[in-house]
Amino acid sequence: MTQDIGGALEQLESVVRDRLAAGDANASYVASLAAKGRGKIAQKLGEEAVETVIAALTEDDAALAGEAADLIFHLTVLLAERGLGWADIAAELGRRHGTSGHAEKAARPQ
Amino acid sequence: MTQDIGGALEQLESVVRDRLAAGDANASYVASLAAKGRGKIAQKLGEEAVETVIAALTEDDAALAGEAADLIFHLTVLLAERGLGWADIAAELGRRHGTSGHAEKAARPQ
Amino acid sequence: MTQDIGGALEQLESVVRDRLAAGDANASYVASLAAKGRGKIAQKLGEEAVETVIAALTEDDAALAGEAADLIFHLTVLLAERGLGWADIAAELGRRHGTSGHAEKAARPQ
Amino acid sequence: MTQDIGGALEQLESVVRDRLAAGDANASYVASLAAKGRGKIAQKLGEEAVETVIAALTEDDAALAGEAADLIFHLTVLLAERGLGWADIAAELGRRHGTSGHAEKAARPQ
Repeated sequence: MTQDIGGALEQLESVVRDRLAAGDANASYVASLAAKGRGKIAQKLGEEAVETVIAALTEDDAALAGEAADLIFHLTVLLAERGLGWADIAAELGRRHGTSGHAEKAARPQ
Repeated sequence: MTQDIGGALEQLESVVRDRLAAGDANASYVASLAAKGRGKIAQKLGEEAVETVIAALTEDDAALAGEAADLIFHLTVLLAERGLGWADIAAELGRRHGTSGHAEKAARPQ
Repeated sequence: MTQDIGGALEQLESVVRDRLAAGDANASYVASLAAKGRGKIAQKLGEEAVETVIAALTEDDAALAGEAADLIFHLTVLLAERGLGWADIAAELGRRHGTSGHAEKAARPQ
Repeated sequence: MTQDIGGALEQLESVVRDRLAAGDANASYVASLAAKGRGKIAQKLGEEAVETVIAALTEDDAALAGEAADLIFHLTVLLAERGLGWADIAAELGRRHGTSGHAEKAARPQ
């Protein structure tokens, strides 16, 4: 059974936004990261990207998927802390690649 | 109107896989990148991550969304070249965060 | 014959500082990079680090030395643009590792 | 009093090589890092580069010098683990920038 990346990202973003809003650094990793400042979130994103690069070149599929998921998690936090979200990335991808997933769905014959 | 990130990523992955399969380095950026080897794809991912870090700290929302979209694009290529895709990342996010988007949807009352 | 890293870095720093001071973006790569802003210099440093990581894992000694030299070059530019130099790094290494090269030399019996 | 970067790097490289040769992961950070494999050393280099990028854009001179020293430390370890050293980087810089520090010194009138 394939997993639904759209649902997974929307759920993740919702959780991340709730934790940023709650701001309880003792209760949540996301809030504790945000409490250290935007630079710290950006640093974690960069670190996870380095780990993804290394996993792509030297590790197995499970390890690569794990690092990519870490990268996506921290990108979600970085975007949310700036007030952005996956809808903004979807819109940007849509602009670049001719049609967004949404527009494509809307364009399908009923 | 919000954009559908799931549809956008699935469409992007489909296009990337077609271009990797076609392998025409003259006709497609994805194929030309793949022709240079996995190291080159990984390098581009790393570079886009650096640009995302810098945009998060010094640039406006549009620039950050643009860099994040570039990062996602190259992650899609890196995963596809390894035979992985967004479904694998969704599954990994699901394992970590208790429930995948898919499982959550399945669990909703009808 | 071994090469003198101290002389090489001091010479490089001197050239970089001259080019930053001259500020002629048409005549010099260093000046043209600086004209694009500190973010662009930092971006290049990050990119060269990614290339060094990849070379360390997948390329031969000559390629790794080349990428490391690119990294050092851009670190020299980044430091110089901030008004820092290799003497500051030497001082920092000295503080961390118990004695600087300079102090060690001074401490040698005559 | 200016610090001598050549002496600092040569001393650092000597210490790093001794610790790699001793290979006592309990007694030394360098040996413990090497015991985790080349990928882990490369990862640390990448992480320190990310921290240097962020410090260059958002932190003060002392913090930037500290991150740059961390980057240099891990580059020394990465090179040494591959059997390379600062003499190789000096030689490469010499080839690129017309004359090595060493050659320049040799060319000076007595």
